[in-house]
Amino acid sequence: MTPEELKQLIRTVPDFPKPGIMFRDVTTLIGHGAGLAAATEILADKARDAGAHAIAGIEARGFIFGAAAAARLGVPFVPVRKPGKLPVPVLAMDYALEYGTDTLEVDPAAVIDGQSVVLIDDLIATGGTAHAAVQLLRRAGAVVSRGLFVIDLPALGGADRLRGADLTVDAIMAFEGD
Amino acid sequence: MTPEELKQLIRTVPDFPKPGIMFRDVTTLIGHGAGLAAATEILADKARDAGAHAIAGIEARGFIFGAAAAARLGVPFVPVRKPGKLPVPVLAMDYALEYGTDTLEVDPAAVIDGQSVVLIDDLIATGGTAHAAVQLLRRAGAVVSRGLFVIDLPALGGADRLRGADLTVDAIMAFEGD
Repeated sequence: MTPEELKQLIRTVPDFPKPGIMFRDVTTLIGHGAGLAAATEILADKARDAGAHAIAGIEARGFIFGAAAAARLGVPFVPVRKPGKLPVPVLAMDYALEYGTDTLEVDPAAVIDGQSVVLIDDLIATGGTAHAAVQLLRRAGAVVSRGLFVIDLPALGGADRLRGADLTVDAIMAFEGD
Repeated sequence: MTPEELKQLIRTVPDFPKPGIMFRDVTTLIGHGAGLAAATEILADKARDAGAHAIAGIEARGFIFGAAAAARLGVPFVPVRKPGKLPVPVLAMDYALEYGTDTLEVDPAAVIDGQSVVLIDDLIATGGTAHAAVQLLRRAGAVVSRGLFVIDLPALGGADRLRGADLTVDAIMAFEGD
């Protein structure tokens, strides 16, 4: 399936999680067998071309595409987790949300010093979570030079923000204007 | 890699999440490229042999193995989610925890009536979460006849509980005595 065909599998839900937001929902792509396989193949090919030694994904939807791509390539998957989930001492990173803050955690033993890690997530909007994940992985010793996404919302500036943090950013599809 | 070799990749963390519990941690298997690929292949083969039209996985670690297996087979992945994550009206199921209750949600549109869905999760312990997920998927119209796990802790009775709910249960490895 082509990126344009995959785009047709995205469901748009108006006014979620709040009025005025057009929520681009990957659940319907994940729920399409050929679509899931094609998106995984595209992401895995891009990660391999970027020289990934490992793939990181952000809890929870980033686990879906990140782990599928990692399993396809036979490279380690590094889960970037919400607080309190990992049973070992962690590296943690707080980051700002629109209201309040949130925290991401990684097991430092999951990252080998100097290893090239590609970050995969389902969607990049303002990029706050992805940027925090990149900082955290770098603190853990990873060389993070590429972010791969299923969906980019370029108007929200997240991809530009990551480029400002020395990442190459690539996505299967973009929705302009939001 | 054989199941016995995959078992060597599991990290045991004593006293997590509380004293006396030996936590069997799949993070270290996930973090091993060949291990992740081999576990995915075993689960995908078992799901295919069971006639899976789709694979369901429970947030969050179940997304890792479930989605990877689904992408490998080219079948839909049905995420069984924590409350409030899905942007559409959901089917929900409350279930009892040791203290209090929790809730799982699915998008009813993600399940086709009469479709054979195999449930994949990383670990089965007491089976409370997996049992709730099976009930929820059945309410959504799925025929759920098999549960696949990376790790079974048979002493905790979860696999027997699922068998009592008319499931065939299979796991890559078991840790006896807890």
